[in-house]
Amino acid sequence: MTDSRAQRHNKRMQKHKEVVDAKIEQADIERGVVIVITGNGKGKTTSALGTLLRSLGHEHHCVLAQFIKGQWDCGESAFFASNPNLTTFTMDTGFTWDSQNFAKDKQAAQAIWQDISPFFTDTNCRLIVLDELTYLFKYQYLDINEVITAIRNRPMHQNIIITGRGATKELLEIADTVSEINTIKHAFNQGIKAQEGIEW
Amino acid sequence: MTDSRAQRHNKRMQKHKEVVDAKIEQADIERGVVIVITGNGKGKTTSALGTLLRSLGHEHHCVLAQFIKGQWDCGESAFFASNPNLTTFTMDTGFTWDSQNFAKDKQAAQAIWQDISPFFTDTNCRLIVLDELTYLFKYQYLDINEVITAIRNRPMHQNIIITGRGATKELLEIADTVSEINTIKHAFNQGIKAQEGIEW
Repeated sequence: MTDSRAQRHNKRMQKHKEVVDAKIEQADIERGVVIVITGNGKGKTTSALGTLLRSLGHEHHCVLAQFIKGQWDCGESAFFASNPNLTTFTMDTGFTWDSQNFAKDKQAAQAIWQDISPFFTDTNCRLIVLDELTYLFKYQYLDINEVITAIRNRPMHQNIIITGRGATKELLEIADTVSEINTIKHAFNQGIKAQEGIEW
Repeated sequence: MTDSRAQRHNKRMQKHKEVVDAKIEQADIERGVVIVITGNGKGKTTSALGTLLRSLGHEHHCVLAQFIKGQWDCGESAFFASNPNLTTFTMDTGFTWDSQNFAKDKQAAQAIWQDISPFFTDTNCRLIVLDELTYLFKYQYLDINEVITAIRNRPMHQNIIITGRGATKELLEIADTVSEINTIKHAFNQGIKAQEGIEW
């Protein structure tokens, strides 16, 4: 690389830094956020788990509620099992299309919702992950208004992460950050088997 | 809910299960995959970290190379610090637009690449996460052909995860799975400050 190219690179980076610094300066509201991760692509749950481990890394008290998944030998369960700052709740009916039992699934979803409700008023709880929550409204397992009210009335510094396909209007509205993950390519469609450490 | 609605639900789920089961049946190739997580949205690094913890949860040997980030008090560093199965490499020059030094950054990127190279031939290494790798090609810090060759010749059951905006054609081609994360909304643009446990 010539000197002039390096100079141009450094100048561009300097300008970029000024833009970023100005944005950081402007962002001065300190409060918890609601993050919704939706779309059909792979990476919604893992993204929530990655943020969860960041929060746990700072020794925050956190809750992980996994609504649709269950009965799996998940890598994340093994990893989180011994963490003193994490409380987990899992639906033990498995994926919905395995149980094929509306009443049983609805009951299991509502039981988890009852269990986690106290955390929405707990000022020590810094993060609640609601994994695969979106499906509960699609199947009418939970009342969306009840969930929105709990989120709206939560302690100011509490963060919420919601994952799942097809997030409804109410969730998009209450969210501060919405990411949509789309599939460009998927190994599964090329005949590659799901594997431990990647899919679970 | 009336009985007939529950019946329709169960029937739909049964059909869905048949489709999923047929797909699982067809996917019979057992090998490691290359996953690329790109796009401008929030959640790329956290998604990679979430998959990493799954793999670590199964006690796989893994590598985490963070190319652009550095010098941060990251939650993930604290969380992963004591894990005996994880080897981490971090560029200590910080975000590129903070260092504004092309030569220094390029040297740091190449030093990490040298350090991690042996893992691409190590059959005990099940997962290599190359966080923010895409930028290295944009800035010409690394030769993309060298990276593609290493990925192509890796042990059969090794998984690779690459994150970063603007993944180039070569990366998309070698990938088995590509997810693109788009921003629908971002808290930062509403003046909400970045915070520990979410952004780092």
